[in-house]
Amino acid sequence: MKLLYPTTLRFNPALIAGFPTLTLHAYDARAPTIPDDLLDARILVTWANSAANLSFAAKNLPQLQWIQSLAAGPNDVLSAGFDTARVKVTTGSGLHDRTVAEHTLGLLLTAARRFHEMRDSQVQGRWPIHLGGPQPDREPGTFRTLRDARVLVWGFGNIAKALTPSLQALGAEVRGVARTPGVRNGVQIFNDASLPELLPQTDALVMILPGDASTRHALNKERLALLPKHAWVVNVGRGSSVDEDALFEALEKEEIGGAALDVFDTEPLPEGDKLYKAKNLVLSPHAAGGRPQGAEALIVDNLRRFFAEQPLRNKI
Amino acid sequence: MKLLYPTTLRFNPALIAGFPTLTLHAYDARAPTIPDDLLDARILVTWANSAANLSFAAKNLPQLQWIQSLAAGPNDVLSAGFDTARVKVTTGSGLHDRTVAEHTLGLLLTAARRFHEMRDSQVQGRWPIHLGGPQPDREPGTFRTLRDARVLVWGFGNIAKALTPSLQALGAEVRGVARTPGVRNGVQIFNDASLPELLPQTDALVMILPGDASTRHALNKERLALLPKHAWVVNVGRGSSVDEDALFEALEKEEIGGAALDVFDTEPLPEGDKLYKAKNLVLSPHAAGGRPQGAEALIVDNLRRFFAEQPLRNKI
Repeated sequence: MKLLYPTTLRFNPALIAGFPTLTLHAYDARAPTIPDDLLDARILVTWANSAANLSFAAKNLPQLQWIQSLAAGPNDVLSAGFDTARVKVTTGSGLHDRTVAEHTLGLLLTAARRFHEMRDSQVQGRWPIHLGGPQPDREPGTFRTLRDARVLVWGFGNIAKALTPSLQALGAEVRGVARTPGVRNGVQIFNDASLPELLPQTDALVMILPGDASTRHALNKERLALLPKHAWVVNVGRGSSVDEDALFEALEKEEIGGAALDVFDTEPLPEGDKLYKAKNLVLSPHAAGGRPQGAEALIVDNLRRFFAEQPLRNKI
Repeated sequence: MKLLYPTTLRFNPALIAGFPTLTLHAYDARAPTIPDDLLDARILVTWANSAANLSFAAKNLPQLQWIQSLAAGPNDVLSAGFDTARVKVTTGSGLHDRTVAEHTLGLLLTAARRFHEMRDSQVQGRWPIHLGGPQPDREPGTFRTLRDARVLVWGFGNIAKALTPSLQALGAEVRGVARTPGVRNGVQIFNDASLPELLPQTDALVMILPGDASTRHALNKERLALLPKHAWVVNVGRGSSVDEDALFEALEKEEIGGAALDVFDTEPLPEGDKLYKAKNLVLSPHAAGGRPQGAEALIVDNLRRFFAEQPLRNKI
């Protein structure tokens, strides 16, 4: 039984040995095709595959039973045309929690401490005197520190759980929004219905929503209007969850404090897109994740489950 | 007995009431003089005073017994000419720990996640494709995440103690350098003598040294040469502790990974200074602290001690 693993991933085949019927085969995840002698593969591991490669795989691997994606949200696999009635898909959910959390914390601190404005001054050879020296401390109606800042995480899953301790260590008050309300990891979680009440009490809104039809333009004009004038939006989930036109307008009119975006409706953001120059916008090029951690452990665990005919982890 | 408190500080006089012989008087810490009717003050609270104001105070407050500065390192007071045989000086040590720690964390994340480079691309209307998408994870010889990064804090005092939990939550290995070796807050502390061994094992060197003669150019050409080529230097202590010429040379020759500086030998950094355009240098305008937190509690405690003739807190 053939397992194909991508050359985009550093991978130690020895770590997943021990399954006597299994053979491992590297393939080029960027190539438009997969070699003939691999087309009888039963298991496909994907990471940073090209769209052409996945589309080819969807048409030309008739015996495929299972795809292990290493992406948290494998939109690329799901839209490639695989017969999901026949082919199980498991995600890399959990492999990106810590890296995305770290990046998110960095974007929040950039916003609060205005590192982007400092950079602009530096490049122009100017000392940004208004950003240094004695500063007012935690004035209401500002977002200048995470201490006592009210951070609302919309899409409170595993990434949020990895992020929360760092935010709390800096003194932030963290609340979450998810499908199921309750208390998770000591954080009060609400559902969508509470947004009209929560958004006006938010200094920084962190969006970690998956990219599906139900989240499209979740942050729209009406909801943006509920945020305080000083509030920042940080999106590290999927670009589709934000109405970019409405966000651009809110930024330009200074109806919110700013936005730090790692994801966009179209990536790369096309040259000349108005968002590049939007007021108080910090752009990050889908850089929050991109470094799966613990992939081998997940693959081994799922291989064991696969051969034991047990439910797979992270199955969609 | 008159206590003068500066208008640079938001201050609730009610909070320090309860000392029957004490009267409180606001004064303009930026003004070149202090009004005649306040010149018999016994106690002076300073925060962000102008040099002229302090110099005037040093000459014209004959009954002064105690200066409570709110700066962590009150170099301004110490160099103003007060007769320190007669006038006690206490610092604001501890009031800036959390704000400086937060800023330092932000600078470390900027360096690791390259937010400054992203900003430069954004301003030029370009998507920095090399900084996003799939990335190698924790490659040796790079500083791209705090996870498993070896962070050495030189000047391991209260700010470092406030910073350490955030670094450890992100997975960094923290070690410290201070006068007295040992273990503090679970962190192994070495003294200067260990630097030749420690510096080559450092991914990020955080400098939080005070600004006195003993720390002048502590980070010099020889010590810079001991850092790995990818290592970053983050200085939030005092500018004088870094030999800026040697640092500039190390940056230009790419002998270190980069430097994020919040403090400089001369502040504001003069227009045209070569550091503005140095390779891989991130400039922050002495913005790490500047927001004393808990000033009133410190003042009240020290007032009680003053009247009780007990040793003052934070006495130099």
